[in-house]
Amino acid sequence: MASLSPCEHSFGRMSSTALRMSTLFLRTLREDPADADVDSARLLQRAGYIRKAAPGIWTWLPLGLRVLNKIEAIMREEMAGIGAQEVHFPALLPREPYEATHRWEEYGDNIFRLKDRHEADYLLAPTHEEVFTLLVKDLYSSYKDLPVTLYQIQTKYRDEFRPRAGLIRGREFIMKDAYSFTIDEEGLGQEYLKERGAYERIFHRLGVDYVIVHAVSGPMGGSQSEEFLAPLPIGEDTFAQSPSGKAWNVEALSTPQAAPVDYSGEPQVETRTTEGTHTIEALVECANTNYPRSDGRAWTAQDTLKNVVITVKHPEDELHDTPWREVVVVGVPGDRTVDMKRLEAQFAPAEIEEANEQDLKAHPELVPGFIGPMALGPQARGHGLGADADETEAGSGDDGSIRYLIDAHVAKGSAWITGADESDRHLFYAVYGRDFEADGTVEAVEVRQGDMSPDGSGPLSFQRGVEIGQVFQLGLKYSQALGLKVLDHNGKAVPVWMGCYGIGVSRALACIAEFHHDDKGLAWPAAVAPAQVHVLATGKKAEAFDAADTLVAQLEERGVEVLYDDRRKVSPGVKFKDAELIGVPLVAVVGRDTVNDGTIEIRLRDGSEAEAVPVDQAAQRLQERLDALR
Amino acid sequence: MASLSPCEHSFGRMSSTALRMSTLFLRTLREDPADADVDSARLLQRAGYIRKAAPGIWTWLPLGLRVLNKIEAIMREEMAGIGAQEVHFPALLPREPYEATHRWEEYGDNIFRLKDRHEADYLLAPTHEEVFTLLVKDLYSSYKDLPVTLYQIQTKYRDEFRPRAGLIRGREFIMKDAYSFTIDEEGLGQEYLKERGAYERIFHRLGVDYVIVHAVSGPMGGSQSEEFLAPLPIGEDTFAQSPSGKAWNVEALSTPQAAPVDYSGEPQVETRTTEGTHTIEALVECANTNYPRSDGRAWTAQDTLKNVVITVKHPEDELHDTPWREVVVVGVPGDRTVDMKRLEAQFAPAEIEEANEQDLKAHPELVPGFIGPMALGPQARGHGLGADADETEAGSGDDGSIRYLIDAHVAKGSAWITGADESDRHLFYAVYGRDFEADGTVEAVEVRQGDMSPDGSGPLSFQRGVEIGQVFQLGLKYSQALGLKVLDHNGKAVPVWMGCYGIGVSRALACIAEFHHDDKGLAWPAAVAPAQVHVLATGKKAEAFDAADTLVAQLEERGVEVLYDDRRKVSPGVKFKDAELIGVPLVAVVGRDTVNDGTIEIRLRDGSEAEAVPVDQAAQRLQERLDALR
Repeated sequence: MASLSPCEHSFGRMSSTALRMSTLFLRTLREDPADADVDSARLLQRAGYIRKAAPGIWTWLPLGLRVLNKIEAIMREEMAGIGAQEVHFPALLPREPYEATHRWEEYGDNIFRLKDRHEADYLLAPTHEEVFTLLVKDLYSSYKDLPVTLYQIQTKYRDEFRPRAGLIRGREFIMKDAYSFTIDEEGLGQEYLKERGAYERIFHRLGVDYVIVHAVSGPMGGSQSEEFLAPLPIGEDTFAQSPSGKAWNVEALSTPQAAPVDYSGEPQVETRTTEGTHTIEALVECANTNYPRSDGRAWTAQDTLKNVVITVKHPEDELHDTPWREVVVVGVPGDRTVDMKRLEAQFAPAEIEEANEQDLKAHPELVPGFIGPMALGPQARGHGLGADADETEAGSGDDGSIRYLIDAHVAKGSAWITGADESDRHLFYAVYGRDFEADGTVEAVEVRQGDMSPDGSGPLSFQRGVEIGQVFQLGLKYSQALGLKVLDHNGKAVPVWMGCYGIGVSRALACIAEFHHDDKGLAWPAAVAPAQVHVLATGKKAEAFDAADTLVAQLEERGVEVLYDDRRKVSPGVKFKDAELIGVPLVAVVGRDTVNDGTIEIRLRDGSEAEAVPVDQAAQRLQERLDALR
Repeated sequence: MASLSPCEHSFGRMSSTALRMSTLFLRTLREDPADADVDSARLLQRAGYIRKAAPGIWTWLPLGLRVLNKIEAIMREEMAGIGAQEVHFPALLPREPYEATHRWEEYGDNIFRLKDRHEADYLLAPTHEEVFTLLVKDLYSSYKDLPVTLYQIQTKYRDEFRPRAGLIRGREFIMKDAYSFTIDEEGLGQEYLKERGAYERIFHRLGVDYVIVHAVSGPMGGSQSEEFLAPLPIGEDTFAQSPSGKAWNVEALSTPQAAPVDYSGEPQVETRTTEGTHTIEALVECANTNYPRSDGRAWTAQDTLKNVVITVKHPEDELHDTPWREVVVVGVPGDRTVDMKRLEAQFAPAEIEEANEQDLKAHPELVPGFIGPMALGPQARGHGLGADADETEAGSGDDGSIRYLIDAHVAKGSAWITGADESDRHLFYAVYGRDFEADGTVEAVEVRQGDMSPDGSGPLSFQRGVEIGQVFQLGLKYSQALGLKVLDHNGKAVPVWMGCYGIGVSRALACIAEFHHDDKGLAWPAAVAPAQVHVLATGKKAEAFDAADTLVAQLEERGVEVLYDDRRKVSPGVKFKDAELIGVPLVAVVGRDTVNDGTIEIRLRDGSEAEAVPVDQAAQRLQERLDALR
């Protein structure tokens, strides 16, 4: 083997030099750092992998840097495996490209902005869509150049309001971000699947559990998107899983429309006096007191239909020269609350807010506390019942009527107590589809544990997760905004389809630590551990240290990465504690037993096994153990 | 070999995957970029290694990143060789540590400052002395922990007023910075020499010529310092070399005091009328016209002694509660100009400026245009001649007299035309040491080609250079400012001795390109080339491409890094031109000769040799050639 790759230079060819704790720049801490709010931050600091430089800004010590390098090497290998090419962009970038895509403003306070000495605006980039787009525009011009996927592993910045959870939500952090460029949407789909596959392999190799979650787009715009979430209770994201194994970001959940029910047994709709019932609670109490059901079942909030007034702030459109406001009423079961974020997603690009007093005054048919469907939507326009109303046909009511939308949990044929559009009056047994119609259905309420899965496979369950990766079909957003076009087969300039794919590298490291630790310390998977074998020389006898030296030399010769506790004046107890804290997967103890019985104890850090091996077989046995761990 | 280092993961074990130009993210440019002011910037852009993102801010394309990685790997190997341990600091750092060392202000406009969303001050670090000091303070507490040397390879920032020369003077750039910590000055000296030796090996391996130059300290403070300069005409630094091979940064040059000369033949000093001679030129003309020398030699500017008035702005000191100003006169040969920068260095920490009108008015003995030594220094105090005056004894003239310093080029016993301290009068034959004395000698004038070397080995010659590295004995500056103390052998807390050692990584890459190119393109040394062999498949015949595929596979198998021009519709001429531009050291041409004669042409990029090798021996021959290049 005459040729050297640059890395063989840096790590030696076959052999590997042990890290000696007598000189290693490392101090383990017996106490938890005061502000460590999660296990990974606590243990990575205690075990001497990282140190805090400022809120959300971390310094990598030698052990931490080794783990980080291994993680990055795995990512590079998998990226190379799908043909992605590595480049490296600056972190400090000028304002202009981010202005062109409106992200300079959209990021708000979340990015670090600065001026250079000539007063030009710069930012510390949180992601690099713009400059990747411009780079491809700079170099490429034809469909023949495509597809191409580029990536970088690079330091990124976000000015988090409240950095937390150590490396999990930092302000300076490391990302692997990749971007694919294809001539058409089909190509985008293919690259998307390649990246998705690579991510699965990466997280598998890193020992990070993950759930792939259907996601909606964040501020990056675009269409299809999935997130890789590490299911951890410390996570800031909530996701829902169906019994079929599918998972959704809660914002991306689309509840299945409740199946129609038979209303033939329902009484006729009836207007009843419900004095002072301005809340669902009061209404339910009034109903139970004054109008008990014939079958004795109590009325509950689930029997009520709450009509919530919102204002939709539309941007300019074909019919409106300026942004315009629309009052809309949404009917939801009385036991559920409206999730404004989910609801808003369905009005995008419009934004929504609760209707203000002025909006309500403009519509005297809305009687606060007693709003009902009869004054709204199809009913108001006189073609509610029987007409198969849908959202497209229901405009904003050019006749002045208010659009009425109904939550997907409300089944056709279900009967409700709901407002009668006059003070102190409610309708009872108002049947959706018999007595009133809506202009359409929406996802209006919070999804709950136990709600039906979108795929109908059963009730949803909820978990917390940490977002460790995202794959994203950007579509044409950036290529159109920045003019990235190539000539297609017919010589016509067409915008390029883009995807973007990110993994939080430093965050992934923290998640590995979250999954692989116990109350004594870290317990790294062999693939990313700072060393593979931790050799402890214990006791005071020179023979033990000599035997340890020999073992370490044998392991070095085999290319095994060794952390060698060769400290002379440190007690065995401290060495064991440090080994448990540092978390190298295999531990070899050279000490009294070695001197007395000629054996070396080999332990797995996870505590599952320990065995005494004759000195002359120890290196070979450790090698076998190591192979078994991989 | 069961064990894998992380790099073996990323580069494959023995084999290496070729870069194929049909898919490589690369476009070479036929034209020079408009604003490329040096060859490296021009060729690195044309050959597709880098692209400009903003002034002084660069993006690394795949080929550039490969070269960069190889350079970094060499640095890591040499750092590991001297026991330096790698860590990694953030680029975004809080103001406080830099405030403690006054560098927050001292850097002036040269650093990027920013505020976070909570209005806290941050900077993008230009160097990391402060935080390395604090990290060691955080972890270490005893002399037993020392010595330790830490380093990082990291992105740094400087807000250069005028970024230039591509990667050579950028605003975002890569540095390897190392810091040593020792218990005493002797230890510092040892670490300093270790780093210095490692730097010599690094530059040798990188193929960068260098000169080690004695340097003075920049804004980092400290004592001993040497710079590694790459002798290149595009450099911004000037250094001086003696015939003995020693070299000095011009600011660090200390001119040897001119040897005394015999003045026994000099006439008596004489005051002569020199009307209107306010300049040296006018004085020389007047002297030649009115007072020709008896031996017929013409008077020149070299015969005149110019007395320059400066104001020294002293900080507060033991005797002064507030900063104070002192007027000082410096005598220099009339044919030389005062170098204010060199002169100021000798007054540090005071600053100097040319005396203003007010300063002159306060001293009526200073007659503009006719200032002479007789009204100054020892003469003014009445103990000039014969007394062995020196700087320490000469205060600021509490008696109101002005300090008189004389440039080191002025020899004792030399005779001068100089001011007579009255209008339109000069002294002739005023002999230094006979007719007047000075309060001390200073380095006042610009050093010139031909000046005597400090070591007396002969005349200095001057060259331009690019600073590619610096080794620096910081001493106690940072440990004292930031309270880094450890317990010594006696249990006493003592400050730690520090050294710092930097190499511009991206700048080194540019310098390699400066040294290794010709008019056709780059010509990398094998150790850092993006690939080792560039295989060109030329012509239209499938057999040639098949043969090239086979050769590439054989080279991959051997672990040789190959750049493979497998493009089908590109002419041989374009492929040759690209190969010359890209600069891989070995080129193998598979084409017509391969199909017709069964041979492959092997060339060295430097054009020194070419040979035709039978197809089945080509891989082996390339391997041999490659081994010879290393």
